[in-house]
Amino acid sequence: MKSLNFLSILRRETRQFAVIGLGRFGRSVCRNLHKLGYEVLGTDIKESLVSQVLTENIASSAIKLDSTKPNALKEAGIFEFDTVIIAIGNYLEESIVTALNIKEGGVKYVIAKASSDVHGKLLQKVGADLVVYPEYQAGCDLVHLLTQNPRIIERFELDPDHSIVETRIPQEFHGIAIEELKLRSRYDISVLAVGNDDKFKINPSPQEKLNKNLSMVVIGSNKAIQKLPL
Amino acid sequence: MKSLNFLSILRRETRQFAVIGLGRFGRSVCRNLHKLGYEVLGTDIKESLVSQVLTENIASSAIKLDSTKPNALKEAGIFEFDTVIIAIGNYLEESIVTALNIKEGGVKYVIAKASSDVHGKLLQKVGADLVVYPEYQAGCDLVHLLTQNPRIIERFELDPDHSIVETRIPQEFHGIAIEELKLRSRYDISVLAVGNDDKFKINPSPQEKLNKNLSMVVIGSNKAIQKLPL
Amino acid sequence: MKSLNFLSILRRETRQFAVIGLGRFGRSVCRNLHKLGYEVLGTDIKESLVSQVLTENIASSAIKLDSTKPNALKEAGIFEFDTVIIAIGNYLEESIVTALNIKEGGVKYVIAKASSDVHGKLLQKVGADLVVYPEYQAGCDLVHLLTQNPRIIERFELDPDHSIVETRIPQEFHGIAIEELKLRSRYDISVLAVGNDDKFKINPSPQEKLNKNLSMVVIGSNKAIQKLPL
Amino acid sequence: MKSLNFLSILRRETRQFAVIGLGRFGRSVCRNLHKLGYEVLGTDIKESLVSQVLTENIASSAIKLDSTKPNALKEAGIFEFDTVIIAIGNYLEESIVTALNIKEGGVKYVIAKASSDVHGKLLQKVGADLVVYPEYQAGCDLVHLLTQNPRIIERFELDPDHSIVETRIPQEFHGIAIEELKLRSRYDISVLAVGNDDKFKINPSPQEKLNKNLSMVVIGSNKAIQKLPL
Amino acid sequence: MKSLNFLSILRRETRQFAVIGLGRFGRSVCRNLHKLGYEVLGTDIKESLVSQVLTENIASSAIKLDSTKPNALKEAGIFEFDTVIIAIGNYLEESIVTALNIKEGGVKYVIAKASSDVHGKLLQKVGADLVVYPEYQAGCDLVHLLTQNPRIIERFELDPDHSIVETRIPQEFHGIAIEELKLRSRYDISVLAVGNDDKFKINPSPQEKLNKNLSMVVIGSNKAIQKLPL
Amino acid sequence: MKSLNFLSILRRETRQFAVIGLGRFGRSVCRNLHKLGYEVLGTDIKESLVSQVLTENIASSAIKLDSTKPNALKEAGIFEFDTVIIAIGNYLEESIVTALNIKEGGVKYVIAKASSDVHGKLLQKVGADLVVYPEYQAGCDLVHLLTQNPRIIERFELDPDHSIVETRIPQEFHGIAIEELKLRSRYDISVLAVGNDDKFKINPSPQEKLNKNLSMVVIGSNKAIQKLPL
Amino acid sequence: MKSLNFLSILRRETRQFAVIGLGRFGRSVCRNLHKLGYEVLGTDIKESLVSQVLTENIASSAIKLDSTKPNALKEAGIFEFDTVIIAIGNYLEESIVTALNIKEGGVKYVIAKASSDVHGKLLQKVGADLVVYPEYQAGCDLVHLLTQNPRIIERFELDPDHSIVETRIPQEFHGIAIEELKLRSRYDISVLAVGNDDKFKINPSPQEKLNKNLSMVVIGSNKAIQKLPL
Amino acid sequence: MKSLNFLSILRRETRQFAVIGLGRFGRSVCRNLHKLGYEVLGTDIKESLVSQVLTENIASSAIKLDSTKPNALKEAGIFEFDTVIIAIGNYLEESIVTALNIKEGGVKYVIAKASSDVHGKLLQKVGADLVVYPEYQAGCDLVHLLTQNPRIIERFELDPDHSIVETRIPQEFHGIAIEELKLRSRYDISVLAVGNDDKFKINPSPQEKLNKNLSMVVIGSNKAIQKLPL
Repeated sequence: MKSLNFLSILRRETRQFAVIGLGRFGRSVCRNLHKLGYEVLGTDIKESLVSQVLTENIASSAIKLDSTKPNALKEAGIFEFDTVIIAIGNYLEESIVTALNIKEGGVKYVIAKASSDVHGKLLQKVGADLVVYPEYQAGCDLVHLLTQNPRIIERFELDPDHSIVETRIPQEFHGIAIEELKLRSRYDISVLAVGNDDKFKINPSPQEKLNKNLSMVVIGSNKAIQKLPL
Repeated sequence: MKSLNFLSILRRETRQFAVIGLGRFGRSVCRNLHKLGYEVLGTDIKESLVSQVLTENIASSAIKLDSTKPNALKEAGIFEFDTVIIAIGNYLEESIVTALNIKEGGVKYVIAKASSDVHGKLLQKVGADLVVYPEYQAGCDLVHLLTQNPRIIERFELDPDHSIVETRIPQEFHGIAIEELKLRSRYDISVLAVGNDDKFKINPSPQEKLNKNLSMVVIGSNKAIQKLPL
Repeated sequence: MKSLNFLSILRRETRQFAVIGLGRFGRSVCRNLHKLGYEVLGTDIKESLVSQVLTENIASSAIKLDSTKPNALKEAGIFEFDTVIIAIGNYLEESIVTALNIKEGGVKYVIAKASSDVHGKLLQKVGADLVVYPEYQAGCDLVHLLTQNPRIIERFELDPDHSIVETRIPQEFHGIAIEELKLRSRYDISVLAVGNDDKFKINPSPQEKLNKNLSMVVIGSNKAIQKLPL
Repeated sequence: MKSLNFLSILRRETRQFAVIGLGRFGRSVCRNLHKLGYEVLGTDIKESLVSQVLTENIASSAIKLDSTKPNALKEAGIFEFDTVIIAIGNYLEESIVTALNIKEGGVKYVIAKASSDVHGKLLQKVGADLVVYPEYQAGCDLVHLLTQNPRIIERFELDPDHSIVETRIPQEFHGIAIEELKLRSRYDISVLAVGNDDKFKINPSPQEKLNKNLSMVVIGSNKAIQKLPL
Repeated sequence: MKSLNFLSILRRETRQFAVIGLGRFGRSVCRNLHKLGYEVLGTDIKESLVSQVLTENIASSAIKLDSTKPNALKEAGIFEFDTVIIAIGNYLEESIVTALNIKEGGVKYVIAKASSDVHGKLLQKVGADLVVYPEYQAGCDLVHLLTQNPRIIERFELDPDHSIVETRIPQEFHGIAIEELKLRSRYDISVLAVGNDDKFKINPSPQEKLNKNLSMVVIGSNKAIQKLPL
Repeated sequence: MKSLNFLSILRRETRQFAVIGLGRFGRSVCRNLHKLGYEVLGTDIKESLVSQVLTENIASSAIKLDSTKPNALKEAGIFEFDTVIIAIGNYLEESIVTALNIKEGGVKYVIAKASSDVHGKLLQKVGADLVVYPEYQAGCDLVHLLTQNPRIIERFELDPDHSIVETRIPQEFHGIAIEELKLRSRYDISVLAVGNDDKFKINPSPQEKLNKNLSMVVIGSNKAIQKLPL
Repeated sequence: MKSLNFLSILRRETRQFAVIGLGRFGRSVCRNLHKLGYEVLGTDIKESLVSQVLTENIASSAIKLDSTKPNALKEAGIFEFDTVIIAIGNYLEESIVTALNIKEGGVKYVIAKASSDVHGKLLQKVGADLVVYPEYQAGCDLVHLLTQNPRIIERFELDPDHSIVETRIPQEFHGIAIEELKLRSRYDISVLAVGNDDKFKINPSPQEKLNKNLSMVVIGSNKAIQKLPL
Repeated sequence: MKSLNFLSILRRETRQFAVIGLGRFGRSVCRNLHKLGYEVLGTDIKESLVSQVLTENIASSAIKLDSTKPNALKEAGIFEFDTVIIAIGNYLEESIVTALNIKEGGVKYVIAKASSDVHGKLLQKVGADLVVYPEYQAGCDLVHLLTQNPRIIERFELDPDHSIVETRIPQEFHGIAIEELKLRSRYDISVLAVGNDDKFKINPSPQEKLNKNLSMVVIGSNKAIQKLPL
């Protein structure tokens, strides 16, 4: 639960972020933080990427910086940030040296992008607090999107055995009131909400008749959910 | 809702996937599909990446292929696949020409990775059915992880106004029975489950006393959730 | 007949042309338009080609421009032109992205040079109104020049079966009056003109005697023309 | 008229062509000659281009050859061809040296592609019999296509003052018989044919009524043609 | 005193060395170990350096190896060695990844060459037991050679205040017996030996007369030695 | 003894050094000389290395200079230095030409770094007074460190047969007075000092009891020392 | 004898030379012309070579110039020179285009360096008046120097059968008067001079005794000279 | 006179030559030696140049060889040659190292090509017996050809003050007998031969009348020759 605590504290303490490396991933991080109102400083060794960030106005500020030089980081005030995100993915050496510099400069939270297992290990050895693998994760997400049960729209895993699932209402439930379906007794699941992406009704009345064009959100064991006529 | 339908059908119909481009993202897609038992063919123009996939045994098979040549695709049987994932991200030209070839070869579902807005537009112009932006999405995900309410562990958005949220049990709820908290009347939220990542108890009894070291899963309007003493 | 109409309208409506890409083909387009008195703006990403156009004075103006950036095109006013000719042949990606930008910028007529079949297809997918293949066409023209009937100088094909042809007057017609040859009755062809590249006499008198050092222009079916003792 | 004679003789004497340089232009020359049934040998210094020609089957044969080496040309039998087409456009030095070698090897007709004025001059100095400028010519052709009188579809120039022209039938001629229009007396032009790209009627009857949806082919002086209400 | 113990144990336990990286420094390490009779395996990613080592016969064996791949190291048996010397100096990334691999493979003693401070720090972070800086040390040594007291030939520092020093015998001591000089009482130093590089007499007799063409070895405090009329 | 004399004179005469080549070795030479208070001028052909030296303040001054140009050396006043150190190791040609220039410019002492035997020979042919092989020497030093007798800490070789050695006091001498060990009569060696790296006692009293946690410094023949129970 | 006349006229008419290409050969031409007092303009496309010529002061002036651009040549006044020497040897294309430009610019005498037979032929095709092959000629000269009769010092070939030769006086002629040797009757050669490189006596007296340490210059048929006891 | 003697001996002793470096100069040396019947071995590090020499048959044999490796030279038997010519001009380092290797291998005569003064000096430092500067010499020769007195065809310099000169017979001598011209008394020169490049008459009769279309060869002081009405 250490990682959880680490993130809870980071979230509470951080108002300013520095993002080092303004490639596709780094720019996306800047854009999203900036949109949420955080102060974000973007840096890159390439002038052109810095310019792009300024032109697209997706960070509070952006400067050219060689992050492998401790002095450059210090002069730019990077060591004053509580959280620094190292978004250098393709140049392992620059990434590792930057992470070392940032930790030695006293920054409390260092998040770093890794492009391979070994890259991830090295980042941890030099002190990165959290390592993310965007391409690896994106592959997982896409496969999840492509392969889950055709009727299941989204799934929220509670523990290894229980989930909350949004699923399309099966044809055979159409026009039947929730209470008539006896879902709790027959399947051991509860219906939490009924609706679509625009509007859900929470805790629908047991008399409500289901509509096959809507979705329902149910909670229960994975086994129970699998038995639903989806 | 077209995209939803498209995915539902794809999921039902596809048992074999071809993945073109075996960089970090493509390999992750192969690995995850292969782990789930799907038949996956990986291809790349670089011998070394094909070898890596074979050595790591993360696809059913892998071959060297220049996907900009229609003949090469045809001979390799790529046009027989129902779903082809184009994971070429850094070479816009190869990506676009490949997508054109694959669609002209009669493949039903084409998913393609884009590295920029313009890349995404071009992929759609030549017929890609779904375009994904891994680095962009990864940036969103990381920002979400770093910036949400410190006590909220995970959030499942139902519609723009309602969510299901896993949150740490507040200090002030510690030792108090659920029914005593009168959460529904005071906050208009319901407690769905109590526990931790290893084990959740669904539909806990109203007499159950809460423990600040555990999490609870609640459902309600976003406004109501925000008022909880998190 | 759509292409015909498209060109008729384009010709009527366009007074200003922008030519993107100032290689050998693009410069030739500029030079010829400029000679005819049209206003032509030439652009290229390479400073040296822009300078060459200005030095040779073969366009109304010329500027350096990265046509893969929509903003750059907009600021340069390219979207105000009725007709834009994309003469980028060797860089498929730049060519396609430029065509997309130009169409999205609202330009009515986009003509683009393709270097291969697939290039041509992509240009059409992104909205190019007319695609030309200069090297391919030049090869056709040269072969035509080298291989046609040795006596035929030029041919104007009316429909798949009829042509107007300029041909050298055959030895055996030398010194004979046109009416004596009974060309219409024997060959079903008519003589339209007699002369040489400097001066042709139209509708020559039937009494005119033919001269083997001159050419004649005849109209008729291809089969009939082929029977002439050329 | 020397160039005309040169071509007449070349056409009569040549049955076999060698094409040196298999880029876009060279391949187009091969393809067109091959389609017409000529024997064509294609050569290039790059293995990949030779393979492409063999795969696409657009020449009788194709071999890898360094045309700057006289011996290589001799061994390949290039000096036995009556006509050799040098389609090397981007490498001035190779082009010039090849032309010198081919002429010194005794080849009668040498046609060469030039990429600039100076290239063309050098080719002539070393003995090329005909120099073509594909990109330059393609630019001329495109401009011609884009800029001629909107109603004129095609033009066949007889001499500087007279032409045969295919033009759309003007609105005001619609439904009027040819003889009523008195085109010869009022405009000094003759109507040679009436129809469309699929089918033309030659020497239409004077009583035939014109239809604005068709084209007519007329002969006359350029000034006269310009006066037509096109 | 940890480093001292580490080396004592290493010396006792190691009979076989693997040297990774066969540049100038690595080859020198191989050559010297091999001369002393140790078994030495040299590896490099470059074929040519492996060949050079085999030709010069300066290691027991030598193989081509990509040390950034754990499998390659394992198959070559590198993890069986007690001591591995990483002599990759110019490629920080390869050096660091190799060190990580070697330590993860279970090798007990890892010595690594660093080319800069930051390189040295990273090597230590991934577990290198000893880091050497050849160029840095060589610079120190040369400066020492060039700048020490002109008469002092060699110096053996005992502790910060005491040394044993070989020095040329001063002119003013020439022909005088050691006992007459009263070196112990006047300077608080003792003469340990007298001679030259070929032959030293240890514990010379007090009656021995000194010769200015020879050297003497003395022991004492640095201050005392400095007072000698050198 | 020529080399010895050469160094003695050099040490006496030189107060200013020029160091040509500011790579890792050259910078180390500068830093050490500078620390000792010598005036040091550093030069390199690369601006970046000159800047680094100035930033790190490890030389009196530093300038950019192409040392293969005699004029550049002259203008920079390099020929006025008594001693010049050529620290160019990787570019044999520049190194050799620089050495030639420096000697022809009249500099008295030239020290040069060689990267191979042949490099060293060439440096001597063009007049270098002393050639050093840093990587070769570093390899020797490391091997010496790794392979000497486990108890021996440091060794000072007097002549091929005699040494002074610092060694850990053997277990079996622990608690015994020096005179009891009769080292001189049994082993023919003398104890010169006893202590550790922090503090040594010189000429310890014969009654002093030895402690196995300390070191002792002894003088004697190599054979005798080897017989000690180390 | 045309070449002879050409040179005679060139020598009479030229006072100013332009040398294009300032490599080793071009600089040598500049230096020698400049030393003889001619006005010499040197040009090169590389700034560094122009600077070198100015620094070494081996031409009247030197400018940077791209000689493949006719305009650049014209503006620099190159077309005003009577004689231009094209010393571009390694870039055939630049050399040929420059020669064409210079001849088209109206320069009367163009001398050009060729690096191969084909280069030489091309230079002549574009109008070079004299082509030189420095490396080829230097090879001839060296072989001549290394292989001629060991006693012959220098040879001046009059025609294919007769020469004037400077030869060392044979041992067996030492101390003998010229007239006694009866060289004309016995060998059919005449002695023209006797001496050494510092001083020759012309038409020596017949009574002069020859000295084996001196040389003599004789005239005669090659066969006769070969019979001398050299 | 050392160089003279060196060459005399070399010429007498050498029957076999090795030529290292087969560029333009090296090939010319091979070709000329081979034509004279000497045994010549050519070597180069580039396969293509070795092949060229074998194809053109301009050496007895030719092999690929890296002349910077002493072993390679030894195995190829280069050290057995009496004379080795190093024709490597553009790579100073290779040239110098080769020269060192060849001299250390015991070759008696080493001739080497230099590309600059400093290159020449280095070659001499490592022991080259003769250094030639082909481009420099070629420049001298061309200038001599272009600038000498227009009538002088060739000049053979005896000593700084006397020459033998071939000159065209002046107009004013035409038709006059040699004795009438009193050249010896008026100009102090003697006529040695009269004729042209095809045929010279040696020691022409005094009664012979001179012909302005022929040349004469005269001997005398430079001042006297200059006074001739040339």
